Amino acid sequence: MSDDSQVYISELSRHEGGHVTMRGWLHHRRSGGKLQFLVFRDGSGFMQAVVSKSDVSEEMWELTKSLTQESSIALRGEVRKDDRAPGGYELTVAEVQLYQLATDFPITPKDHGVNFLLDHRHLWLRSKRQHAILRIRNEVIRAARNFLDEQGFVGCDTPIFTPNACEGTTTLFETNYFDDKAFLSQSGQLYNEAIAMAMGKTYCFGPTFRAEKSKTRRHLIEFWMLEPEVAFHELDDTIALAEGLISAIIASVLERRRTELEVLERDVSKLESVRAPFHRMTYEQASAKLSEKNTEFVPGGDFGAADETALAEELDRPLIVTHYPANIKAFYMQPDPEREDLALCVDILAPEGYGEIVGGGQRIHDPELLERRLAEHDLPKDAFQWYLDLRQFGSVPHSGFGMGIERLVSWICKLDHLREAIPFPRMLNRLTP
Amino acid sequence: MSDDSQVYISELSRHEGGHVTMRGWLHHRRSGGKLQFLVFRDGSGFMQAVVSKSDVSEEMWELTKSLTQESSIALRGEVRKDDRAPGGYELTVAEVQLYQLATDFPITPKDHGVNFLLDHRHLWLRSKRQHAILRIRNEVIRAARNFLDEQGFVGCDTPIFTPNACEGTTTLFETNYFDDKAFLSQSGQLYNEAIAMAMGKTYCFGPTFRAEKSKTRRHLIEFWMLEPEVAFHELDDTIALAEGLISAIIASVLERRRTELEVLERDVSKLESVRAPFHRMTYEQASAKLSEKNTEFVPGGDFGAADETALAEELDRPLIVTHYPANIKAFYMQPDPEREDLALCVDILAPEGYGEIVGGGQRIHDPELLERRLAEHDLPKDAFQWYLDLRQFGSVPHSGFGMGIERLVSWICKLDHLREAIPFPRMLNRLTP
Repeated sequence: MSDDSQVYISELSRHEGGHVTMRGWLHHRRSGGKLQFLVFRDGSGFMQAVVSKSDVSEEMWELTKSLTQESSIALRGEVRKDDRAPGGYELTVAEVQLYQLATDFPITPKDHGVNFLLDHRHLWLRSKRQHAILRIRNEVIRAARNFLDEQGFVGCDTPIFTPNACEGTTTLFETNYFDDKAFLSQSGQLYNEAIAMAMGKTYCFGPTFRAEKSKTRRHLIEFWMLEPEVAFHELDDTIALAEGLISAIIASVLERRRTELEVLERDVSKLESVRAPFHRMTYEQASAKLSEKNTEFVPGGDFGAADETALAEELDRPLIVTHYPANIKAFYMQPDPEREDLALCVDILAPEGYGEIVGGGQRIHDPELLERRLAEHDLPKDAFQWYLDLRQFGSVPHSGFGMGIERLVSWICKLDHLREAIPFPRMLNRLTP
Repeated sequence: MSDDSQVYISELSRHEGGHVTMRGWLHHRRSGGKLQFLVFRDGSGFMQAVVSKSDVSEEMWELTKSLTQESSIALRGEVRKDDRAPGGYELTVAEVQLYQLATDFPITPKDHGVNFLLDHRHLWLRSKRQHAILRIRNEVIRAARNFLDEQGFVGCDTPIFTPNACEGTTTLFETNYFDDKAFLSQSGQLYNEAIAMAMGKTYCFGPTFRAEKSKTRRHLIEFWMLEPEVAFHELDDTIALAEGLISAIIASVLERRRTELEVLERDVSKLESVRAPFHRMTYEQASAKLSEKNTEFVPGGDFGAADETALAEELDRPLIVTHYPANIKAFYMQPDPEREDLALCVDILAPEGYGEIVGGGQRIHDPELLERRLAEHDLPKDAFQWYLDLRQFGSVPHSGFGMGIERLVSWICKLDHLREAIPFPRMLNRLTP
């Protein structure tokens, strides 16, 4: 049987009435007298296969009855359309072949504690729910890349090993780099700025690392970030780009990952309302709103998780917040020409309590101002000489942002915790498997 | 002028006869009496703009004559079709606006030493050649992802921080991970295997790290790898996948990046001949061929760079080499059932002396054999328990490979050194900018 080419569950509509070989794993088996109902998965989906005692040999019938959860099998049979079946097709099995009988698969339909599940992440990934989340994550990344590619962006991978820190050093991972020290990147932004001056529109997508001793459901030690950067973009341009990007991602997930959203029991009306333009306010307006809400927010300071939730949780689409005080933002933020104490920056907060999904803004393009800011932030000019060079040789206004993929996936899937939004989460106290 | 929406060079065919605003950088200026010819770049391409003394104010004419290489400018004018112009269009300029005059841009048309260029990598990226390479790199990645997406692969990002080594520890970067140690991944393969048992077909694409004190033109410390892994694939299936993938990438670059290949003066006939099936031989056949060639190859050992070059340099398409001795390959390689001393593995060597671009094969799926191999390689069973679990719960034959993106880009672009195939190369003695 192993010479037959394998047909996948996702392709069944092309094989109606055909005799096919399928390979995968038993998800669940139910006995019905002279019938065995096998819920079967092959990575592309789940389907039902029916084995009838009268259709198979005695030996094969006994084999079928012995099959356990996660046993690996091949099935040969006829594809039948059945509107009652999940996915619309069923397999009438003529032949069962066993690769391996699985004994005591640790993750059963009963409830397990989260540490148990994380210890068995390599097996937990096989569940319907994790399967659905990872397919949605892949769609988010696919849709984002397509959206940017179609607009003429050139994806360029920025380095992970960096000689200096983008925003302070207390949360950086460090490694020996031959006779030197290297730090693991927290953002590709500074390099993106150099690339944007060459390619006009660029983005990077890669892992970033924060050595933060934080245990909230919104943090991972290792997370993936998509960062576009565009020459000649000013604040409003980068906001429009972020709105368009997020809307396109949501639309693509709604179009191509309906089944997975159903598995997650996601209320899709909450996603269908996500269309540009998003809600928008300034930091001052947001502060005023928070003072009515009795959060622990201190005016002039940054928003905490509870503040972000209070601002955006009841909205039907994300909230854009602009013009934060310059002194709580990074050194490279372009000041508002009308109000030098405010930064031309933007955060985008997801609805339903998911917090910041985008952070960015316009970067300083004036060489003297950037040099002054480096000094004010006690950053070594030498290490940033290459970054200053970008303001020396054909400097132009430019803007960009970072979008945390796990934050976005968590919101789209309505997860309780970021740890389910990545195949193998890395957290404080969690480096395995 | 800054309110006009920007038209890019790549979009000019849609604007023939139109009056447009373009923004970018001066690449080169040539005077012709009452005309100034500006070669202008905006990241999407290069074009010629012509300023006529009679069309602009005296002040604007003087400004135009003062423009230096890499000065940032906006141009407004009329798009004219001109078959003699590079790209087929020219701009007749009505207005010039200066963002910043660049003084003494360090990279001039004259020759520079490679260390000088690497020190100025942030500016070197603006050259026609680097621009072309990065656009081809992006196309390689885009084409690879599209090819895999269309075949139902689910891209899943594997972790960078790992608690143990995939293949030995001498070349691993290490970092403190709170109270623990973490190593930076050299391959997503082991995690891919777990994901393949969940998703059927998966791939990861991310940075990998080798602390190798090697200074060859074929090595980088930080490089990006694409790694597909498929459940139920045997050796020949994974070879067919790799052939299809490489052929699709080359076809896509030939279709969409012709201009860039021309900039690099690449002999495209060398790429046009790259079609499946590739050339193929066993390790034994390759050994015999090398013994005729007088390289320093020692039979039974691995191929060195010179051996790889000798085997494949004169071929019109890549060379597939299979069935290496098991004892020079990684612990997880499935042995050939006919010859237990050989591994069901595959390396693919690029023509024209570019060496290994793919390495992979079939993985052991038998739990006892894998456990024996771990012991033979002195690998701690505890750390690999999760990996052994994959052979315990519905184990199936599976295969995959890793493809180094910089190696592939170097070959496609015919580069002298891998350092040009990535925006900011990391090498021994090179961590900046």
